[in-house]
Amino acid sequence: MGLFPENRKIDFLAQGRAGLDLYASEENTDFNDVLSFKKFVGGSPGNITAMMATLGRKTGLITKVSDDLIGKYVISYFDSIGSDTSQIIKDSSGSRTSLAITEMKPDNCGVIIYRNKASDQQLAPEEISEDYIGQAAGIVISGFALSEAPGRDSAIIAIEYAKRQGTTVILDLDYRPYSWRSDYEASIYMGIAAEKADILIGNDEEFAVLNKIMYPETVNDGKAAVKPWLDRGCSLVIYKQGGGKGALAIEKDGTEHEGRLYKVVLKKPFGAGDAFLGTTLHYLMKDGDVANAIDKGAAAASIVISRKSCSAASPTEKEINDFISTYK
Amino acid sequence: MGLFPENRKIDFLAQGRAGLDLYASEENTDFNDVLSFKKFVGGSPGNITAMMATLGRKTGLITKVSDDLIGKYVISYFDSIGSDTSQIIKDSSGSRTSLAITEMKPDNCGVIIYRNKASDQQLAPEEISEDYIGQAAGIVISGFALSEAPGRDSAIIAIEYAKRQGTTVILDLDYRPYSWRSDYEASIYMGIAAEKADILIGNDEEFAVLNKIMYPETVNDGKAAVKPWLDRGCSLVIYKQGGGKGALAIEKDGTEHEGRLYKVVLKKPFGAGDAFLGTTLHYLMKDGDVANAIDKGAAAASIVISRKSCSAASPTEKEINDFISTYK
Amino acid sequence: MGLFPENRKIDFLAQGRAGLDLYASEENTDFNDVLSFKKFVGGSPGNITAMMATLGRKTGLITKVSDDLIGKYVISYFDSIGSDTSQIIKDSSGSRTSLAITEMKPDNCGVIIYRNKASDQQLAPEEISEDYIGQAAGIVISGFALSEAPGRDSAIIAIEYAKRQGTTVILDLDYRPYSWRSDYEASIYMGIAAEKADILIGNDEEFAVLNKIMYPETVNDGKAAVKPWLDRGCSLVIYKQGGGKGALAIEKDGTEHEGRLYKVVLKKPFGAGDAFLGTTLHYLMKDGDVANAIDKGAAAASIVISRKSCSAASPTEKEINDFISTYK
Amino acid sequence: MGLFPENRKIDFLAQGRAGLDLYASEENTDFNDVLSFKKFVGGSPGNITAMMATLGRKTGLITKVSDDLIGKYVISYFDSIGSDTSQIIKDSSGSRTSLAITEMKPDNCGVIIYRNKASDQQLAPEEISEDYIGQAAGIVISGFALSEAPGRDSAIIAIEYAKRQGTTVILDLDYRPYSWRSDYEASIYMGIAAEKADILIGNDEEFAVLNKIMYPETVNDGKAAVKPWLDRGCSLVIYKQGGGKGALAIEKDGTEHEGRLYKVVLKKPFGAGDAFLGTTLHYLMKDGDVANAIDKGAAAASIVISRKSCSAASPTEKEINDFISTYK
Repeated sequence: MGLFPENRKIDFLAQGRAGLDLYASEENTDFNDVLSFKKFVGGSPGNITAMMATLGRKTGLITKVSDDLIGKYVISYFDSIGSDTSQIIKDSSGSRTSLAITEMKPDNCGVIIYRNKASDQQLAPEEISEDYIGQAAGIVISGFALSEAPGRDSAIIAIEYAKRQGTTVILDLDYRPYSWRSDYEASIYMGIAAEKADILIGNDEEFAVLNKIMYPETVNDGKAAVKPWLDRGCSLVIYKQGGGKGALAIEKDGTEHEGRLYKVVLKKPFGAGDAFLGTTLHYLMKDGDVANAIDKGAAAASIVISRKSCSAASPTEKEINDFISTYK
Repeated sequence: MGLFPENRKIDFLAQGRAGLDLYASEENTDFNDVLSFKKFVGGSPGNITAMMATLGRKTGLITKVSDDLIGKYVISYFDSIGSDTSQIIKDSSGSRTSLAITEMKPDNCGVIIYRNKASDQQLAPEEISEDYIGQAAGIVISGFALSEAPGRDSAIIAIEYAKRQGTTVILDLDYRPYSWRSDYEASIYMGIAAEKADILIGNDEEFAVLNKIMYPETVNDGKAAVKPWLDRGCSLVIYKQGGGKGALAIEKDGTEHEGRLYKVVLKKPFGAGDAFLGTTLHYLMKDGDVANAIDKGAAAASIVISRKSCSAASPTEKEINDFISTYK
Repeated sequence: MGLFPENRKIDFLAQGRAGLDLYASEENTDFNDVLSFKKFVGGSPGNITAMMATLGRKTGLITKVSDDLIGKYVISYFDSIGSDTSQIIKDSSGSRTSLAITEMKPDNCGVIIYRNKASDQQLAPEEISEDYIGQAAGIVISGFALSEAPGRDSAIIAIEYAKRQGTTVILDLDYRPYSWRSDYEASIYMGIAAEKADILIGNDEEFAVLNKIMYPETVNDGKAAVKPWLDRGCSLVIYKQGGGKGALAIEKDGTEHEGRLYKVVLKKPFGAGDAFLGTTLHYLMKDGDVANAIDKGAAAASIVISRKSCSAASPTEKEINDFISTYK
Repeated sequence: MGLFPENRKIDFLAQGRAGLDLYASEENTDFNDVLSFKKFVGGSPGNITAMMATLGRKTGLITKVSDDLIGKYVISYFDSIGSDTSQIIKDSSGSRTSLAITEMKPDNCGVIIYRNKASDQQLAPEEISEDYIGQAAGIVISGFALSEAPGRDSAIIAIEYAKRQGTTVILDLDYRPYSWRSDYEASIYMGIAAEKADILIGNDEEFAVLNKIMYPETVNDGKAAVKPWLDRGCSLVIYKQGGGKGALAIEKDGTEHEGRLYKVVLKKPFGAGDAFLGTTLHYLMKDGDVANAIDKGAAAASIVISRKSCSAASPTEKEINDFISTYK
């Protein structure tokens, strides 16, 4: 399908937060009774990178972490899975690596996020290398990175460099209300990024906020909310439908692919989106078969959500294939 | 030339700061020896609006002022010259109306600006009315307004509304280094706005900063710095050449118009750009004759720079014509 | 009365803001109709210093101004009246010299203050010289300087140095509600300073805020509000009674001096307090006669309030004596 | 020795941070290799409270936590050990409960602290109850709480209320350089608090910073650094000598008590100071025997430092006595 340029040294870069995730060791246990937390690397772009690296992709992260044991741990984790860490910058300004502490429950799962003066949002546009981006076939931008300056400015400049270098821009809307001043602000900056995206991914809430400024008449209107973006410049939009349905992928020429959902017993309610996206991108790059890509993505999402971590729970191609073939 | 839509209730809106200007009463006098300051309304968008209103245009300002005597004075001034003030919002958060205090010298003219927590930069995107913008044929956006959130977000959203409503977007780059975190930041946001502009105006320094990200190879390269913007979407770029030369206006089809400079005895070194732009826009809207428009603009610029204020010194059509006909 | 140490090189220092005052040239005129503003140096500590210098005292100011024409003007003004300016520090961090723009009316007189990131509040404790304070017989601390860090920390450290050096501490409560987070905060820090003060001056509102924490039962209770401070350590408290009455000065042994008010035709409602304090301190230092000092102070206050500026309107000893002798 | 008032409902209050501590489960293991962290409540005032509660004291905490699972856990922990939690306020402003993540090593033990917009420092003076403080015999103020407004203002007002209510003020200097703008600032505010303290505790570095303003000539001078505080108003100063020595307690009349150190095998290098202070205060309140109190305190300190947590590792009276009697 020609979504990606050929002959690039790196398959995928991701820009945005990568941090520390601490998951309760005890399942189905209230926070007060949890005795300990298991240590993982997390953050949406971090998880997506881990997913793609597990599937054999050459990856790299563009982000900032604190210059302390946690920041160094994050870097060492990506080193250990073969992801390039040359653009993970250490910051000593008093910022802190993004941190999430969670219970381990299938639903009503408590999560506490520490993101006051988060290191990833201190990434400045002067620190983004156009050459580095030009070495990649694709770059995943987290919409969340657009929520605060100068991280926001860095995401916008990375997209501009990518367009100039012919690197495919994948925008994961990744909208979290708590990180924006208002949904107006979110719509403006997600819109600026979405106009330049080649591949656009989001769910109902995310397209609703995105469209608030651009297509207010389509808010919360399913396909009507996502299709206009193909006219705006996207080659592919992937709409995570929710409500028991799978993903809907629509190509520029209008071809639609309705993906399925693989029902599993959840350990926790998060991790699905990142596994889905990392896997889908891997298979899209493999052979451009959209239907197959989102199907594999759905399987990976369900595998990860049935496990007790995210990055470290990323399945291999074999595990994905086995899961699908044995699924009832 | 078809630059503007027809049949709009308002000719021109301007968005950005309008504040208090206090000019030394005594000419050629050092600050310490100045006894008093004369009171005027100023701020680039405010001066441009005053210029256009003086030439008979129906105008309006979109901005924020402090809810105090100074803010009320600014509003009353625009009421008095017939400019619509319905979108000048009063702010009680502790912000202050932009203020400039200046000497009155032809060069080495001291200026002190008070813009810490300036009211105009508190304008929020939720406060911008798409309907109001849709009533105008053109909207002048000051690039300076892009230098700080949420004023920045409001300028971006105003441009988006203008594009949707078919209102012509005029971007006056208006770059002041002191108001930006870095020139990278300036380039990013001025670029986001410039991509949507129909008419783009700036000088060497301003195009250099704008192009830092977009066309780095053209920095400080005269025409090469401004022409690419016609490919990007502008219908008209006006390059204030400086160095003793007049303005250079280039149309989308490549037609160039080299404007002249009218030499005068300066009272002060500021005010020229705003008078130039307001006058040029007036004549462009009149009959689309670009060469005539920038010529009238150059005359107005020289008239204002030879007078001791800006907004209140805006010349009428008759004064401009008389100036040109008597010029040697 | 032994209020001050002998044989000091400097009579009085003042610590706190000194800035630019711009007073409307036209009397009894609404802001919108004012054509120009006259330039003076102002700010309560600045005015008190000008008053004392006019009466022949050796003075100095400890403060910060912006490193621009306005800051340099302020320094040059105090140089011109013979006040030591060695501890007026110029700041280039983007702060601005305190600025007040006013109408010129006897009442309902509009005032607009520009104090967002005011330079005087950027004064840091490391910048206070204990030796310099030790050269003075008395130091006037403006309670207003306690309203924001690090200016607050600098005022506290200046008081500590003064106590160590035997320099008399005069605390002018100078409470402006708009500059504090809450009256709790004001009470705490004004209290910390008042406990170390030798001479304490304030009005009803100011003692009410001060006592909120210390003597809540005395709030708004006239003499009961001020007397406890003599037990806390003050040698003299001066209570500006208001409501048509003059000042009430109470010495440590309980001796009370009821001052008078000199009725005059006001040009403006401000400037009285600073002229009163500067003059009272001058005469206290002269011969310790409290009754005479506050009487001379009341006269100076009325003279200044009947004139159209503050610092530049400071009367000489002769003018004060003539005023009193001709008063009916 | 009469250090505390009699017949109070509460024995000791503590004011300052109480938060989440996550200690590596694996001992002597580098952060990257740690698999999980054990969950405890921490923060110096929190640990001191836990120590005193374990020894049977009626305690209470005055602080702020975030209104989330972590804040609720902290409150539930103190409920569970019988400490009053009525003055632990939940904050929803986006602040976060103080958090420390640590390795578990006897030395070179890595610690990462998350305190950007820490909830405890959001405690405002209006939220401090004079009545509540008056119910206590003693209140432990953490000097760390003085490092940031408005927590700083709250600590100062709590001390003022305590003095008025006859509640004994114990100031634990608890100086952490990273939390202050400069050591000048630390000296000023620790000094303001120390002047009102009845019992003062600190080590060399802490007294050096405290004295920087007050007694600069005694900096780093052992006993000379701490004795002047007895003249200033303290009834008892406890100097944690370090360098292999125990604590030195000096009473107002000059009586000195040289405490010992109990050598143990460390699991971690922190927790000693809090256990020491909590225990010493308990025994001081019991019978006023200073020598015995600091001896018991030293034992508790060593017990806690040989265990793998702090609050939860607080020893009982029996454990302390057994430790001392079996110590070789």
